Parts: sequence; structure tokens; C-alpha cells
Amino acid sequence: MIILVMNAGSSSLKYQLYNMKDESVLAQGRVERIGMDSSIVTHEPTDKPEVRQVSEILDHNTAVRRVIDLLTHSEHGVLKSMDQIKAVGHRVVHGGESFQQSTLVTPEVKLEIRKLIDLAPLHNPPALMGILAVETNLPGVPQSVVFDTAFHQSMPQESYLYPIPMVLYRRHKIRRYGFHGTSHDYVSNKAAEVIGKPLEELKLVTCHIGNGASCTAILDGKSFDTSMGLTPLEGLMMGTRSGDLDPAIVPFTMNKEELTLSEVSSMLNKHSGLQAISGISSDMREITDAMKEGDKHAKLAFDMYTYRLRKYIGAYAAAMNGIDAIVFTAGVGENSSIVRQAVCEGITFLGVELDHARNDQRSKEARFISTDASRVKVLVVPTNEELLIARDTYRLVKA
Amino acid sequence: MIILVMNAGSSSLKYQLYNMKDESVLAQGRVERIGMDSSIVTHEPTDKPEVRQVSEILDHNTAVRRVIDLLTHSEHGVLKSMDQIKAVGHRVVHGGESFQQSTLVTPEVKLEIRKLIDLAPLHNPPALMGILAVETNLPGVPQSVVFDTAFHQSMPQESYLYPIPMVLYRRHKIRRYGFHGTSHDYVSNKAAEVIGKPLEELKLVTCHIGNGASCTAILDGKSFDTSMGLTPLEGLMMGTRSGDLDPAIVPFTMNKEELTLSEVSSMLNKHSGLQAISGISSDMREITDAMKEGDKHAKLAFDMYTYRLRKYIGAYAAAMNGIDAIVFTAGVGENSSIVRQAVCEGITFLGVELDHARNDQRSKEARFISTDASRVKVLVVPTNEELLIARDTYRLVKA
Repeated sequence: MIILVMNAGSSSLKYQLYNMKDESVLAQGRVERIGMDSSIVTHEPTDKPEVRQVSEILDHNTAVRRVIDLLTHSEHGVLKSMDQIKAVGHRVVHGGESFQQSTLVTPEVKLEIRKLIDLAPLHNPPALMGILAVETNLPGVPQSVVFDTAFHQSMPQESYLYPIPMVLYRRHKIRRYGFHGTSHDYVSNKAAEVIGKPLEELKLVTCHIGNGASCTAILDGKSFDTSMGLTPLEGLMMGTRSGDLDPAIVPFTMNKEELTLSEVSSMLNKHSGLQAISGISSDMREITDAMKEGDKHAKLAFDMYTYRLRKYIGAYAAAMNGIDAIVFTAGVGENSSIVRQAVCEGITFLGVELDHARNDQRSKEARFISTDASRVKVLVVPTNEELLIARDTYRLVKA
Repeated sequence: MIILVMNAGSSSLKYQLYNMKDESVLAQGRVERIGMDSSIVTHEPTDKPEVRQVSEILDHNTAVRRVIDLLTHSEHGVLKSMDQIKAVGHRVVHGGESFQQSTLVTPEVKLEIRKLIDLAPLHNPPALMGILAVETNLPGVPQSVVFDTAFHQSMPQESYLYPIPMVLYRRHKIRRYGFHGTSHDYVSNKAAEVIGKPLEELKLVTCHIGNGASCTAILDGKSFDTSMGLTPLEGLMMGTRSGDLDPAIVPFTMNKEELTLSEVSSMLNKHSGLQAISGISSDMREITDAMKEGDKHAKLAFDMYTYRLRKYIGAYAAAMNGIDAIVFTAGVGENSSIVRQAVCEGITFLGVELDHARNDQRSKEARFISTDASRVKVLVVPTNEELLIARDTYRLVKA
């Protein structure tokens, strides 16, 4: 079965085309700058040369049509006809409390995603546009939605409630949702496979650290707690997001700097984190490069970043009363051996023993980077959210 | 040497009179509802009956005069003359980055405390009023100031800086300060004494949990990290304060509920925490009583409170790469065996083994509540901030 996976942002659309027979990627690509007159389409068929087009793409509907055209194109395509696409899976950021798992798209599901716009004003609208665009361009093809939040719906109340007036939960659904669920789900299962034990028997902390970053305590095979909250701002220090801070800093800063609500949100989401402390970049590669050249601000940003991650691992070990393995994934987690080293060398008391040669080795495979004797295992597991979306979609369509 | 210790709030003044020869308390008491026509003075001489007076006390100057009158009163007093008071020590909440330790009051020190009003608008002004009132009523008597923040000035940058634009630190001194420093300092020293090792060789987590609550990672005998931040709002869940939450909740709630800056601050400081979740009380005794009677909201509040504390202990163990002892102090920490039990039973993986009989025993003494075999020691140490203020003052005046 051929499945198209889509991830629609406000001005972008990423896609992967899977052949579920062997879970191979037939093609992938992205449309950027949707809504502008110089939109860019990058199409990468697996066995053919990459195609790059610049043209006017004013909405998601046009973007989806362009993607289908490319997938079925006589020269650049990988399909003979668009009828070969048997299902489409969408990444949706916010499923609120309504969605505990992936589901097929129905009118009710669309309505529910629309209702959740309040909680994800930047993310849910483009996902809906993507769904509608597929309805128009691939009429009759079943679609599924896979939520970033769904995996975390297993959290107990003491993890997901905030100690603020309960009326805010009842009235506005203010609670911890957590994000990156697809990734935490995928890498925890993969880690259990590599370790060779059932996931249900393992206490894991999965660290999805890319430009956004979150870590999750996984107990009994389920998300028990996670560092992102109502929004992706809470938790770890990130590329441009602050993560945790004294909530009083928000009104204090608004008052001192005469900021509006949206200005203070923008400051904490777009101008904080690694970027703010280093003054150099939100990209960990540039931070570590600068650090090696003796830049003190880069070193400070690196130290704060790894220190805060270390504290979360300790906190989640305490949350689960134990820890069997730590899993690193996403851009920084998969590629920055120096970040992994700084984190692991600070928590040897837990029984973490890093194998430096393994840690320094580059690989696309899920693997151990702890020593064989290490009581707590440390793994690097490349994440693959698209594959999990494709798998969920396949399962739902087959059922 | 006779030393008077004072703790001035906006409408209150607490005092203790110490004889430093044997560190005995000669008298203590408090003036409440300063600025109202029905102020209440409660005076408790150690060897005489308690005195309670209701009258008009419109300012701190009058309050201090009333205290001195009572201390030297022919019937209720404990001193023959006010000349016997050789020094006065003041608790001051915020010493900012200017004060790393207690110090004698000079014109420069007063100016500096005044400059810090911005960071502690509710707390530093009454402390200054107390100092001025003593200058008026006990002219020539040396005074010292002991800061809640000073003990935490040893924190490294990665603990005290927030991942937000550095200009906010440079311009407004937005950083983690931490509070309850006098208490964390006192109980960590006492705990080392009980353990029988130099404090410098111990990795401690001290939990000052009263109506306000904070915990501190103590490494090399110094504060390495602490849960309260720019203000006492950050960190643990407290009686009426939320502690940590997604910073995005602040603008989100302000927008949804149309709250002003001071309303949202008031909500998080005065109407959150145990009070908000239980709907019953901010007092842990009432929470645990209700819980025993099967109240679900009380149980939830208790679970969130202890869960969050457990996570901090784990985080600080990771921060120090190890933990030798956990110290409980202040109202809840000293008296709630059920809170201590819930916290300790969730972190046995660290090597914490509670001795239930010891935990249930009531005592005013610093003591172990872990088993003798417990790898991580657990102690209850009654705090005594006033005694530490008296000792610091004594040391400064003698020098």
C-alpha cells in the first residue's frame, strides 16, 4: 500500500511517500513559503535526481496539487497515477484531551481539531488546511491524523495538572499536554527493541532534543510525565525557547519593558534559549564550534543547556523511582556527541557509564553509547516521526 | 550580650530577644495589623505569662517603641533597661547581588537595600522601616542585616541565569536569587553536625517546606542551586503559590480571563498551590486530615505537592552528581510525617530507606528518620532562622 505522509505548517508543507510493503520511502520533499509569490518546491524522488521549482503557490490546496503532480510526473514522478495513493496521514500538533491516539478523519474529527485551535493557534489551522486540500485533490482517499499530544494522554493527573485555580482547567483546558509524542513513542519502542526487553518492563527517559526539545518519563510503556506543557515553551532550554523560568518573570518583564502579551510570548519563544545566552546562534553545532574556539558565551549557553537536561533526567528518574535507560534523539540528540557526553558525565551516580568511542561514532542506526557494564543504558535512536505516521495510517486504513 | 532579632513585614513585626551567653531566648513576640486601629501585640517573656494588647499602632516606629517598652516593662519585661540591648539583627528578604553575607548597617547599606526595592517591593520597604525605627528608638545601637538571598549568592551562572535575553539580566537584574537562605544555611550545618561529617564533604538537598517552600542543592558546603528564583513564586508547589508552570500560561490566562499584570501575579501567588487544587486550605494539616476522610481533591493536592518535591530532589541529585542526605525543615517538613513518607518512598532507587518509627516520632530535635543502613540519610532539622540572625549579628558586632 502506498501512503502519503504530510506535515503542514502555516507556510510550509513537508511530505513523504511510503511503500508500506517494505516501509521504503519512494519520494519526499517540501513546499516552502506558501502564500508568497516565490514559493519553493523541493522534490526528492528516492531513485531520481532532486527537483527544485520556484513559483507562486498561494495556498495549501495549490501546494498539495503541486505535490501530487510531482509524484505522478512522467520525468520526476514515482507513481503512474495518483490512484496509487491509498491513504494520507497528517501530523497534527494538538489533539487536546479529545484524541488519545491516531484516528481516521471524519467530519467529527475535523470539527474537534477546529475546536482545538484555541490551544494551538499557529499549528492546527494549517493541519486542517492540509486535510481539506487532500479532500479536494484526492477525493475519496482515506486520511488519518496523528497527534503530537496523543502519546502523552496517558499521564496521571499529578503530572498533567498545574497548581493553579482548577477553574482554568475546566474553563480553558489549561493543563500539561506535552508534544513530540510521535517521536517519544517511536524511539522508546525502538530502544526497547535494541535493549531486548519489553518496553513495559523498562523505565526510560527519552530526550528529543532538536531545535525544540522535550524529554519524557516512560513508565509501563506509557508517557508518565513530559517536559513540554500547555505549549511547547515549557521544560528544557531550546534553540530559541527559554523553557522553565520563574513565572513571575513574565509580568515583571512586561512591566519593566512595557511589553504586550504577544511581545513577551515572542520573546520567550523566538528570542530566548541558546540564541539569547550565546548571542551567536540557536544551532547547537554553531554553539559547540564557538565553544571550541574559546567563546565564553557559547560555553555558558552549552553549560546551561546540558545542566537543565541533566536535572530533568534526575527529576524523571525520581518520578519513576528508577531509570533503566536514557534515549537521545532528534537533531542535537542524534548528532551532538559533546552534548550527550556533558549530560552523561554529570549523572554517573545513577549508574550511567558512557562509552566514549561509541558516543563519538557516527551512525544512522539505533545503538548503545553506554558501556556494556553500564547499569543505566544510554542509547542514540534516530527518530522517524514520518514512518510512525505512515504505520499508524496503514493500521487504521487496513482495519 | 543581649541581641534583639527583628523580622518586619508590611503590617507586622516579629521579635526575639537572645542572651548570646547561652543562646537562650529571653522573650519573643509579634505586633500584627500595624497601620490599623486595632493592632495586636503578643509578648511572650520566657519565664513570665504571655501578654496580649490591642491598640492603635500606626507605623513601625511606634511598633518598635512598644516592643522596647514591653521588654523593659516592670511587670512583663525581661530587661532592666534598654541599654542592655547591645545589637539588633534584622531579617531582610532581598539582598540582590550586592550582599553575599550578613553585614552591619551603614548609610551605604541602607541605600543599597533601598535600591533593591524594585526586586522585593513588598518586603524590603518594611525592613528599612524597621531599621530606621531602631535608629530612632535605640540610638547608637549597632544593627546588622541578614538576607534571605545571601546564602544563594554562591550559585554558579548555569544555576542562576535564565535562558532569556541577557539584556534583562544586565538592565533589570533578572536572575535566580533564591530565598530561605538563612534556613537552608542553618539546617545544612546542623545536619552535617548530626551526620558527623564536615558539611563540605556532603551533597545535601535541604527542603524548607512551610507555607512558602523551597529546596536547595548544597555542594561543598555552599548553595549550588535552589528552587525559588527571581521571586519566591518559582519552584515547589506551596500553600497558595503555584511554583513551576509553563511560562506561556501567564499570557494565555491574562488573555482568556482579561487579567492585569497584578491580577495574574496575585492569582499565582495567593490563589494557587494546595489551596487551588484542594479547594479546602493552604495548610497541609487540613489537607492531610481531609485526605484521610477520603477527600479526592485533597488527595490530588497532596500527590501533586509530594510528586513535585520528589522531582526536585531527583533533579538536584543529578545537579550534584550524587546525594548523601535529604533534610526536611519548616512547618510541613518538621511536622508532616506523611509528606516525608510520600516523598521518601518514591525515591528508594536513590538509596533512601525511611525508618517509619523514627519518621512518626515527634521531636523538637534534629534527628535521622532514615534507617541506619540507608545509603542516603534523611533528617528532620527544626529550623531556627532567628538564632542564625542572632549569631551573625553577634559575630559582626564582636568583630
